[in-house]
Amino acid sequence: MAQTTSSTAKRYETYKGKMQQIADIRNAIAVLSWDQETYLPEKGAAFRGQQITSLSTIAHELFTSAELGTLLESLDNDRQTLDTVAAKNITLSLEDYRKNAKYPASFVAELSKTTNECYHAWINARKEGNYSVFEPVLAKMVALKKQEADILGYEGHPYNTLLNEYEKGANTAMLDTVFNDVKTALTPLLRSIEQKPQVNKAFLHLRYERDRQWNFGIQLLKAMGYDMAAGRQDISEHPFTTSFSPQDVRVTTRIDENDFGNMTWSCIHEGGHALYEQGLDPESYGLPSGEATSLGIHESQSRLWENNVGRSLTFWEYHYPQLQQLFPENLGNVQLRDFYKAINLVQPSLIRTEADELTYHFHVMVRYEIEKGLLDGTYHTKDLREVWNNYYKEFLHVTVPSDTQGVLQDIHWSHGSFGYFPTYSLGSFYAAQFFTAAQQQLPGLDAQITSGDYTALLGWLRQQVHRHGRSFTSNELCEKITGEPLNFKYFLHYATQKFGDIYGL
Amino acid sequence: MAQTTSSTAKRYETYKGKMQQIADIRNAIAVLSWDQETYLPEKGAAFRGQQITSLSTIAHELFTSAELGTLLESLDNDRQTLDTVAAKNITLSLEDYRKNAKYPASFVAELSKTTNECYHAWINARKEGNYSVFEPVLAKMVALKKQEADILGYEGHPYNTLLNEYEKGANTAMLDTVFNDVKTALTPLLRSIEQKPQVNKAFLHLRYERDRQWNFGIQLLKAMGYDMAAGRQDISEHPFTTSFSPQDVRVTTRIDENDFGNMTWSCIHEGGHALYEQGLDPESYGLPSGEATSLGIHESQSRLWENNVGRSLTFWEYHYPQLQQLFPENLGNVQLRDFYKAINLVQPSLIRTEADELTYHFHVMVRYEIEKGLLDGTYHTKDLREVWNNYYKEFLHVTVPSDTQGVLQDIHWSHGSFGYFPTYSLGSFYAAQFFTAAQQQLPGLDAQITSGDYTALLGWLRQQVHRHGRSFTSNELCEKITGEPLNFKYFLHYATQKFGDIYGL
Repeated sequence: MAQTTSSTAKRYETYKGKMQQIADIRNAIAVLSWDQETYLPEKGAAFRGQQITSLSTIAHELFTSAELGTLLESLDNDRQTLDTVAAKNITLSLEDYRKNAKYPASFVAELSKTTNECYHAWINARKEGNYSVFEPVLAKMVALKKQEADILGYEGHPYNTLLNEYEKGANTAMLDTVFNDVKTALTPLLRSIEQKPQVNKAFLHLRYERDRQWNFGIQLLKAMGYDMAAGRQDISEHPFTTSFSPQDVRVTTRIDENDFGNMTWSCIHEGGHALYEQGLDPESYGLPSGEATSLGIHESQSRLWENNVGRSLTFWEYHYPQLQQLFPENLGNVQLRDFYKAINLVQPSLIRTEADELTYHFHVMVRYEIEKGLLDGTYHTKDLREVWNNYYKEFLHVTVPSDTQGVLQDIHWSHGSFGYFPTYSLGSFYAAQFFTAAQQQLPGLDAQITSGDYTALLGWLRQQVHRHGRSFTSNELCEKITGEPLNFKYFLHYATQKFGDIYGL
Repeated sequence: MAQTTSSTAKRYETYKGKMQQIADIRNAIAVLSWDQETYLPEKGAAFRGQQITSLSTIAHELFTSAELGTLLESLDNDRQTLDTVAAKNITLSLEDYRKNAKYPASFVAELSKTTNECYHAWINARKEGNYSVFEPVLAKMVALKKQEADILGYEGHPYNTLLNEYEKGANTAMLDTVFNDVKTALTPLLRSIEQKPQVNKAFLHLRYERDRQWNFGIQLLKAMGYDMAAGRQDISEHPFTTSFSPQDVRVTTRIDENDFGNMTWSCIHEGGHALYEQGLDPESYGLPSGEATSLGIHESQSRLWENNVGRSLTFWEYHYPQLQQLFPENLGNVQLRDFYKAINLVQPSLIRTEADELTYHFHVMVRYEIEKGLLDGTYHTKDLREVWNNYYKEFLHVTVPSDTQGVLQDIHWSHGSFGYFPTYSLGSFYAAQFFTAAQQQLPGLDAQITSGDYTALLGWLRQQVHRHGRSFTSNELCEKITGEPLNFKYFLHYATQKFGDIYGL
């Protein structure tokens, strides 16, 4: 028996070594991709694409090798001799392995080919401003996604299995409830805001000089607790966070001199993602216990910092005077409360990525309904422009003037990422629920935030969320932290309070 | 017969695919290393090291796989159906493959372990300023290098096989001739310079503001023909050139505000390396025909630009007025000829990397004699401090005040790079011979340089040197371009003319 234990331990080490090697390759891909978005000279793109493909192929071969499968099965059989975290790692890796093994090579090749086509069709459609250019290839993609659901198998709705790629445990039953709450509870709030006179935010669009913006962003990142010795910020077209290990987690931002908010909330948002990655266990590098729980939980971290903290009055009580000192010409005569109102302006609009934190969820809901409908045949790609525009009319009260500002605005479908969008809203709702728990569990939190001190909050997030990796699903984690599953009421309460105050409802 | 041809073509494509995949991994390693030297946050170093090791292991496994060996052997048997370049690629890849296959795994492991030890011993020895800390591990390294020579086999001197790692075809017979020329022909020149009053270079060490230096460096790189859409310059502690494909060749530099020359000649030197890499055939990516000929030829390109062009009066006739405009406070009253003298000052000194283009070769000669002597038993690591210091006394007339400024100054031996140093001198001598040929073959070259136009020169280098890759050895290439093998007389003529003029000999 002792011998079995020792042999299990040895095999577990072999498993760790293999997973770390695969992680090394995936992280190398991440470095190559980061470079692609930040510093790559233009002519380098073609060979860079080829280099990333080669590494991806190798990582895939290693992770789908029969050798790894046999090792995982044998460790799974001996799981009683492993500790809890190790046993969970084996369960998750075996799950990942079996899922990967289900895909026939022909399907993988077809999906890869179609994704490439689809992306280029989307680019061209946007150039021409015409959804019809995208539609035939999108139809092929949807057919493949239906096929993928069949290959992987599913319970209930075929969309569930795609959702689970991003958010394990999520399903249409849960999301129907959530987005029904959005519709029934947020719509009246939105309608009453629409009755009120709009707040002034013109001063946010004066000229905010580039270098001073940059310095302010770095100052915010440092204040949040982002470890600059284990990360860095650079400029890219679209802000993102990437991680090569918990000791090297990088963020990017962009600066628009006529839009103060653009860089500021990108820094705080990406900073939230980065704090999560910096908080993962370095000892678990390459293992499920060292990976983020899910996209929804990842997004909960970015949104908690961006919205619950970064758009709060308490946050700016500390940082606004600093900002006024940096930009006295723009903000010297603007009162804190007017600044606070401006950065929280609610106004239905066309573009998801520019939406405020209230109307944002209607944008997501539209995409959720469409994806679900495409998967079960309620909707067809041919009708998407109309479906899209009608939804926007009904819920956001806006008329979509062009496909580029409508059904063509997001890249996700062209990548075959169906099931991704809902995690954005889940992130906000988890964030509200987590932040409520933090406020209850951390006495004096508001006072700390007012004095620019986020140590306790970050410590709590590290302890409650970051360090667990994939050891719990998002549902499990939520119950563990807050004592109940995801409940929309926390977000509703937060939004009602905040916007009630701002708009005097 | 037609079938054989077609099957050979097919196998050649398989070979190309495998080599490209290996190149993709090696280039990914290069990206990770570039990042390590330029942007890596300090805590990221440990995981980065591990990631590079993982990729190196995979590249090594792929290149030493039995499958590749069989493929290469079969293509080598059918070489008569391949075109010249393809046949040469197979010859070279098979040579590389067989050489790799000679190393027993135990030797590779021992060498890797000792290299690691040796590097750390060197770091520690430098900290303590004491060669004795380094000596015992260096002795182990030398023993391993002797063993390596036996494993690989050699003709004549055991050092030859190590030289061939960097410069195929080089041997002690050739280098003894070359360095004998250095001793017999350059020593009298150096001695007569030492009799002359020294030129003034104090103005090169006034304050040269960082950003203006940077802009000047970029301007020089562009003037040389470095394609900024297929490369970029960044800052690192030690300047270097790295290539991820001919479409993405990057250089780095460093800026010392009190040493104008530091950045300027690093830009021109690395620019010369980079032009070579940008001139390699992208169609031959991953194949020997797409790789640099040798280190000596690589260095010939950097030194031709750095010295024959970049330290010439003609070059500065064009660029000096620009420089004076950038730094009027330092150079406004300095005449071109005085500037030219200052940047060509000859003065025996302690540190190789800071040496002028004449005394430099004595530094290399010392290392060559020591390496050769260590390999054949003439010298022993225990005596190196004394041997080193005596050489410096005899040839450079300087007294070495400390090991750090003496026998511990270079990193190469700690890496196990024996046979590398001579390529530096070979580079200068090839450069002089090539540049003489260019002057003969390109009418009006001097006038073009005087007007800042390097198009014809770069075109000639592309055609004569860059595009051939490893299809010729350095000897073959030299004969092809200049009609004779490497001949020291071209460098001697160049140096005698130039320094005779500067010092009025």
